[in-house]
Amino acid sequence: MACGLRYKGRDDLLLVELAPGTTVAGVFTRSRTASGPVLWCREALRGGRARFLVVNSGNANAFTGNAGIASVQRTVAAAVAALGCAPEEVFVASTGTIGVTLDDSKITAVLKDGVAQLAPDHWDRAARAIMTTDTYAKTATRETTIGGVKVRINGFCKGAGMIAPDMATMLGYVFTDAALPAPLLQELLAKGCAKSFNAITVDSDTSTSDTLMLFATGKAGNPPVTAPREVAAFRQALDDLLLDLAQQVVKDGEGARKFIEVTVEGAVSARAAKKIAFAIANSPLVKTAVAGEDANWGRIVMAVGKAGEKADRDRLAISIGGIKVAKDGQVVPNYDEAPVTLHMKGSDIVFSVDVGVGRGKATVWTCDLTHAYIDINGSYRT
Amino acid sequence: MACGLRYKGRDDLLLVELAPGTTVAGVFTRSRTASGPVLWCREALRGGRARFLVVNSGNANAFTGNAGIASVQRTVAAAVAALGCAPEEVFVASTGTIGVTLDDSKITAVLKDGVAQLAPDHWDRAARAIMTTDTYAKTATRETTIGGVKVRINGFCKGAGMIAPDMATMLGYVFTDAALPAPLLQELLAKGCAKSFNAITVDSDTSTSDTLMLFATGKAGNPPVTAPREVAAFRQALDDLLLDLAQQVVKDGEGARKFIEVTVEGAVSARAAKKIAFAIANSPLVKTAVAGEDANWGRIVMAVGKAGEKADRDRLAISIGGIKVAKDGQVVPNYDEAPVTLHMKGSDIVFSVDVGVGRGKATVWTCDLTHAYIDINGSYRT
Repeated sequence: MACGLRYKGRDDLLLVELAPGTTVAGVFTRSRTASGPVLWCREALRGGRARFLVVNSGNANAFTGNAGIASVQRTVAAAVAALGCAPEEVFVASTGTIGVTLDDSKITAVLKDGVAQLAPDHWDRAARAIMTTDTYAKTATRETTIGGVKVRINGFCKGAGMIAPDMATMLGYVFTDAALPAPLLQELLAKGCAKSFNAITVDSDTSTSDTLMLFATGKAGNPPVTAPREVAAFRQALDDLLLDLAQQVVKDGEGARKFIEVTVEGAVSARAAKKIAFAIANSPLVKTAVAGEDANWGRIVMAVGKAGEKADRDRLAISIGGIKVAKDGQVVPNYDEAPVTLHMKGSDIVFSVDVGVGRGKATVWTCDLTHAYIDINGSYRT
Repeated sequence: MACGLRYKGRDDLLLVELAPGTTVAGVFTRSRTASGPVLWCREALRGGRARFLVVNSGNANAFTGNAGIASVQRTVAAAVAALGCAPEEVFVASTGTIGVTLDDSKITAVLKDGVAQLAPDHWDRAARAIMTTDTYAKTATRETTIGGVKVRINGFCKGAGMIAPDMATMLGYVFTDAALPAPLLQELLAKGCAKSFNAITVDSDTSTSDTLMLFATGKAGNPPVTAPREVAAFRQALDDLLLDLAQQVVKDGEGARKFIEVTVEGAVSARAAKKIAFAIANSPLVKTAVAGEDANWGRIVMAVGKAGEKADRDRLAISIGGIKVAKDGQVVPNYDEAPVTLHMKGSDIVFSVDVGVGRGKATVWTCDLTHAYIDINGSYRT
């Protein structure tokens, strides 16, 4: 719906009604200044059940003190009145400017009317309603089976800046008609998130509002399951959908012109590999080199060094676009930069680094740092 | 001297001869991929004595493997031959592009001639010889006394990008005619560095080559000292000079138009305060907001949240340019943005944050993130 919170001429309010019996899982920002809606959702999640979701764009309702908490409570109360569900079955989120009191009367005034207009075919419109600086709606769908019964997963998300591990200004909602108990759903979501939404970065900044939720309505009627091994195919489909959505966020990174994949192997652990990969992916010098189509692998060496994880300087190897650039701690003999430069002119850039000390491996994704990032963020509010 | 390593029509080689008996201290990058010159200096420093310093610009001699180590050895050998000193009294540094083999023959070929040309009045020229992307030479001088005897401290440094805690592509050389034993010199330098060069950031990137050295010739003839309390005035003068030089680096930050001071207080410790201050100072969203002259204090809240240190969201207070913007976890009543916007239009921006949980305090300095940073770093080599 268009409730007039900030944007003119576009939807800025998303309402989702969920079938009775829907189970729910969620992963939230680890920010120490998390928003009121995030605090509410964390609590409500303990019940494991969901009937209603309310998301507004244009105002993050973050750093709004008691007024922000009261806004959440009034929004939840209005949803309870409209649907007759329990308060802890209502989930809320807000995205947009931080520190401005949310005029929740614009939400509560239209909520009852909104419920009357709900329909099952509004996926794309739902994805658009929660956009802020996104330039396109981000949706994905997968089909798989559980116990021989076909189930579907649909998801959408928003996010383009303030994207970092711990999930940044990212809101993601995934829905399946599978019947899955809440604890299993939570395990699947947390593990999938580590390899997708927590493996992307646009600018290393972490939002106060990040939220990724997974709802399971049970309408597909699959046989009951409790253990992860019973849903291997579902897990694979879910992981694939989450990675698809996360990569869409990076590709829409504020000002991004190039998509960058960074794989680090040979680290002491997967955790160490991920830390080194993020040091490369978050380095402004690496990101500006990519923007300038400069195969400046010396900056990758620098980023490996600053990560603080163990690396053998004299066994370090670097490939760009699959072409070996450096090995054994120095540039390869007779290095020919021409094919590497050609790769740098493309839109998908691939860096691989072996730090030579173990078997830990991780891949993360990011985008280049361009003039447009500065244009977008130098004048977000004004 | 101009030895023709990279730059045309300018000096790119610095030679410094130090009086017999000169003591030395040094602080170096914590990068895991530190350059050959850094490894050499760390070892040589154990002797505590210095007679000669050789610094080239244009090539960092980093990530150059055994060839890089051999370059250092040949350069040291040439200095030993020219001066007749011990190898461990020779200190070297290189700054510039990473990963390109250093043609040290250009240095060794001119070293003997260079020694013959040495003179005591070349401070400014020395500062210029080690510049890379710096737009101006960075020098500072202070006078003080030790035991009633006048002593002088002169210093210069270079650095404009890849600046972060752990000292980044920064080379700094400080010289005093005071007589000070090497262990005391090391203590003074390490403590002064923590509050100056390790309290600045341009882009969060850390170089493989960072070096800060302090040489004491003893020519002033002050009475012998051993304990820090005997050199309180000297320490203050040194700290002041180091902060002066460090702030010059930030003001010359690649593309910088605005100088930003970030003070965090009320943290659980000084260390926690510094970590939060750096989270603010390194945030691309904070830095682009400053570039856009936007008083977007919500991004400061975000950065506090992502730092991972304890903060009380509901006691958080923020001032910009001395004007209280937020307190008790929300915007101040009747907030008037006009005077804050006026402050943001100035060239010196001051952020103060109280995170409301303790007494830890720290101040760091940075600059804004502008289009020029991307221009400079998108085409550094090409």
